[in-house]
Amino acid sequence: MKNRIITISRQFGSGGRTVGREVAQKLGIPCYDHELIERLAEESGFAKEYIKNESEYRPFGSRLASALNVGTGFDPLTNQDRLWIAQKRMILELGAKESCVIVGRCADAILEDQADCLRVFIHASFEQRAKRIVEVYGETEVPTERRLRDKDKRRISYYQYYTDRTWGDINNYDVALDAGRLGIDKCVEIIAGLY
Amino acid sequence: MKNRIITISRQFGSGGRTVGREVAQKLGIPCYDHELIERLAEESGFAKEYIKNESEYRPFGSRLASALNVGTGFDPLTNQDRLWIAQKRMILELGAKESCVIVGRCADAILEDQADCLRVFIHASFEQRAKRIVEVYGETEVPTERRLRDKDKRRISYYQYYTDRTWGDINNYDVALDAGRLGIDKCVEIIAGLY
Repeated sequence: MKNRIITISRQFGSGGRTVGREVAQKLGIPCYDHELIERLAEESGFAKEYIKNESEYRPFGSRLASALNVGTGFDPLTNQDRLWIAQKRMILELGAKESCVIVGRCADAILEDQADCLRVFIHASFEQRAKRIVEVYGETEVPTERRLRDKDKRRISYYQYYTDRTWGDINNYDVALDAGRLGIDKCVEIIAGLY
Repeated sequence: MKNRIITISRQFGSGGRTVGREVAQKLGIPCYDHELIERLAEESGFAKEYIKNESEYRPFGSRLASALNVGTGFDPLTNQDRLWIAQKRMILELGAKESCVIVGRCADAILEDQADCLRVFIHASFEQRAKRIVEVYGETEVPTERRLRDKDKRRISYYQYYTDRTWGDINNYDVALDAGRLGIDKCVEIIAGLY
């Protein structure tokens, strides 16, 4: 198997983004994470902050809106739907064009039919993720535990809505690693070794 | 993290047992799989074939039996319960005694509190598992698809019943690998490299 593209899905606070950056650096290929949001902003016309905040929310009720508007000529797409379409097109273009690491953004599902895509999932225990988000992002008014639970719920729901797959289902990944137990460096070594 | 014990949970037909044997060989430590059944037979008095066939079935109705027999002096344990108790004791003893690879038998859950236990899950696509079980075990009267589905259902149910955990939940494993996509050799290399 030739792994030209590496997709990294990760639990919030697991260190998956750092793993992605370091794998890309080690392999000398680009890593798309925040860069995708910037490109998406340029192409879609939405503001970066809006994309960052909204693009992980599934549009509640949009199916209903869609059903109610059949045949009326009214565009039933929500902003989230439009963002999803732009994001999907962008990831498919990236996948067809260059070797790279893509962090998050449902890239594993979008590129699932690409034989040369290595699909990675990075996770860690709740306790280790809680510790990490305080270290990396600092404290906020919202309790750490709630920040983690909210983000998890949002990702699971968004992923399920747009891909019809279960987020974190072991069968969807070539490699799943507990970065809390193995450490970031070991994860980077394993993934780079599979490229 | 020092990984003195490696537990390998695996989907039927994924090649997980072969991965376990080869990792043990590479590391020069024992691998327990069929050996556990033999030891269990010696210690429990049950026949090997009985253990092989029954020990992956959860005892339907035993909780009811248990409830009905409270205080009557009648032993409410099913044969499966007795096998489970013997198996658990044996795995805890092995874990306390020596470095080894243990394939299946809920060893990941039984040894979950051992800090020096590397918990591995090996899976593969349905198509690849179907191909492999015909190659390894030959054709039977039962269609391949049904053999896979039955075995999957049995393991999921048995594991859930005795460990109160979900079999194949990505969060329960330090490393999960798709042996169909990565190949047996690469899986062995990664796991041995983590020891």
